[in-house]
Amino acid sequence: MRAVADRLRLRLGDAPLVRDREIAATYAVDASFWARPPVDFTVVRARDEADVVAVLDEAQAHGIPVVPQGARTALTGAACATEGSIVLNVEDLRGLDIDPVEGHARVGPGIVTAELKAAAAQVGLHYPPDPASVDSCTIGGNVATNAGGLCCIKYGVTADYVTSLEVVLPGGQRMRTGKRTAKGVAGYDLTGLVVGSEGTIGVVTSVLVRLVPAPDPALTALATFDSLDAAVRGVLALREDRHRPALLEFLDRASIAAIQAVGDFGFPTGCEAALLVQSDRAGHAAEDVDRYAATLAAAGATEIAVADNPSEADLLMRGRRMLNNALEAKGGRLAEDACVPVARLADFVRLGQDISARTGVEITLSGHGGDGNLHPSLFFDREDVDGWHRAEAALAELLRAALDLGGTITGEHGIGVQKRPYLVWELGEPELARQRAVKALFDPRGIMNPGKVF
Amino acid sequence: MRAVADRLRLRLGDAPLVRDREIAATYAVDASFWARPPVDFTVVRARDEADVVAVLDEAQAHGIPVVPQGARTALTGAACATEGSIVLNVEDLRGLDIDPVEGHARVGPGIVTAELKAAAAQVGLHYPPDPASVDSCTIGGNVATNAGGLCCIKYGVTADYVTSLEVVLPGGQRMRTGKRTAKGVAGYDLTGLVVGSEGTIGVVTSVLVRLVPAPDPALTALATFDSLDAAVRGVLALREDRHRPALLEFLDRASIAAIQAVGDFGFPTGCEAALLVQSDRAGHAAEDVDRYAATLAAAGATEIAVADNPSEADLLMRGRRMLNNALEAKGGRLAEDACVPVARLADFVRLGQDISARTGVEITLSGHGGDGNLHPSLFFDREDVDGWHRAEAALAELLRAALDLGGTITGEHGIGVQKRPYLVWELGEPELARQRAVKALFDPRGIMNPGKVF
Repeated sequence: MRAVADRLRLRLGDAPLVRDREIAATYAVDASFWARPPVDFTVVRARDEADVVAVLDEAQAHGIPVVPQGARTALTGAACATEGSIVLNVEDLRGLDIDPVEGHARVGPGIVTAELKAAAAQVGLHYPPDPASVDSCTIGGNVATNAGGLCCIKYGVTADYVTSLEVVLPGGQRMRTGKRTAKGVAGYDLTGLVVGSEGTIGVVTSVLVRLVPAPDPALTALATFDSLDAAVRGVLALREDRHRPALLEFLDRASIAAIQAVGDFGFPTGCEAALLVQSDRAGHAAEDVDRYAATLAAAGATEIAVADNPSEADLLMRGRRMLNNALEAKGGRLAEDACVPVARLADFVRLGQDISARTGVEITLSGHGGDGNLHPSLFFDREDVDGWHRAEAALAELLRAALDLGGTITGEHGIGVQKRPYLVWELGEPELARQRAVKALFDPRGIMNPGKVF
Repeated sequence: MRAVADRLRLRLGDAPLVRDREIAATYAVDASFWARPPVDFTVVRARDEADVVAVLDEAQAHGIPVVPQGARTALTGAACATEGSIVLNVEDLRGLDIDPVEGHARVGPGIVTAELKAAAAQVGLHYPPDPASVDSCTIGGNVATNAGGLCCIKYGVTADYVTSLEVVLPGGQRMRTGKRTAKGVAGYDLTGLVVGSEGTIGVVTSVLVRLVPAPDPALTALATFDSLDAAVRGVLALREDRHRPALLEFLDRASIAAIQAVGDFGFPTGCEAALLVQSDRAGHAAEDVDRYAATLAAAGATEIAVADNPSEADLLMRGRRMLNNALEAKGGRLAEDACVPVARLADFVRLGQDISARTGVEITLSGHGGDGNLHPSLFFDREDVDGWHRAEAALAELLRAALDLGGTITGEHGIGVQKRPYLVWELGEPELARQRAVKALFDPRGIMNPGKVF
């Protein structure tokens, strides 16, 4: 690996190389609990597009694997270094230029999602995608995984906002995809192929996203239910509202218990499920959440709290926001992701509960209920390797259940390393072969994030 | 070609083949004024996916060009038969299945866009894309061209609604793209590659589109201006409204004169430009159009009419709806399409007027002003071949002007045959080569709509 670092130093100078091995090790892993740095890898923090071009030229010439990387908040291992690889971090590509007249922003991949949202808000515009890691994840990573989050029921996902990309391909060629105008259909639009490709095609150096008019601060209603079916009736009824909620989160009884275990967030003992629903509709958020509350009462909610100002809304969201910490505190954990048709949400939760009962693996099922997109957590004792493997086996059953319900093995986290064995279940061999051929067209030597996704 | 028809008859039976030469000739052309059927071609009306598979298998085996086709409303020649080709018409693939719970519809490519909109409306949902030919064009054609239309300023284009496709590829393999759930990121999403590919990759046999809650019937404001700059100020100001108009159409003085030439639609003599703006926001359309009217008055409108009910709104739209007939009545015409950044709209109109003055080719510039997407018409005497060629030369100048302003040579019509020479101006040779390589991956023998786009 000395040779690789030396070669890169020759082309880039010393500055962009991370020399300190301890610091470099932090660049070698994402947020997967199992991620460990490999023995031999080189970390480059690109200063600009030219650095990216140089690295991808060098890597292509010598067949060196490249792992593109942003803030490393992924849970799938997609951005983890592999043995002998160059980790190409683009956090320093931080251009941010908002054009309020056209209603779009040109963004470097290193811009943190929350920064883009704040900058848009300053000119009365809104960048909706809202992954849970919004305060630390970067736009480049959001593009790589087609990140979703809390607001998708109303606003969709990252792909719904990306209109054009600048991408550096293996060998260092530049590719520009999509359109810069409101409409444009000249040639193939390869934007959607790159969004969600998890660094397996090229390195995104610039992202053009469309912005929408700013909403109002969200107001919230929180409802609890003593039956799962009633809660899911509430989800389906809210989806029929003419004014789509901006958020519709589902918590199962196990998630509620986990939250209540770290503090009293006001959930009644023994409740079976909870829903949080928000409106941010300009000028009408209060009337919306009142109507949502009535809908949830009709669906059979046992208790309903409605916030009529943003700070109360914030209070109602406290429990939901505590969820990740509460689950983290329970010990070893697979933080997972699956999506089913919303009509099958109750079936999916029940199948998860059955799998938990049968395997003895504790499972919580909560997440973006309004999209049918849940984030199951599967728990194990950190000291117990067998327990971990039992949790992995239970996960495999859960993913199979999602597929059997017409769903997908990943709604928004991506495949990375962790779900690679299951991708064939969803796509089948012929489609997998076709996707590998698409990758090979852009990356004939297979240097882009090998071992990930496929 | 006898051999091709005989071979297809052997596989499909007689039923799907269009034997009558005169009827077949109507399948050989789209709505381009210059389109003429070739001498030698075979027309198949596929009855189902199996017919499509059989044709693409047979065509691949013998290297026969295939021209996929719907209602033939394209203006670019994209769906025109070529010499020796099989025209594969899919108008009979007419499944239509709406799932109101998931909020999506599975649609056969032969469903007319207006049929889908009507079926969605029956269950309180809405399919927004609204190309001008909505009453005759099909969803398959909308997908092939990524059709837009009147409502894009608020709702976007066809690609913004297509979540999954079933496609038959050359050789007859089936490919399923995208996601069936609200979210899904397992593997590459090839949906966006097929949308807008103008039949050069495969034949779409089923389309999954998402639907949105039904809006209210649209209300309209019509404003006239005695300066182009004031009208464009109005466009830009309306784009800043927190509640985006559902339609924002621009008419230049030449378009207004053409409309007034066929009847009095109430435009004042000598006005320089007109804007039509609509709101369909549920419960708030009337307050929106009042506010839009005030915005347009502030921008310098000379006359403003506001409809406070749908039938008045209809009256205000009459002139706009007459436009195509009025332009058609003027003689030979290139019905064109370009899109520029909205901030450059006035520049684009002026450059068009300059080109008209310099070349003597009469040009009207009107269309979807709110998107920067205009449909220039360039006129010539039908008996005058030189005049046609002068119009083509003026068009080339106009497209170059759109590109120089940061725009595109086609906002929504596509490339087809007519704009093929100009595509390299926009994409450049390296990108064109890359796109040809993408096509070759799916269509190695080059049987899919050869001679179109590339």
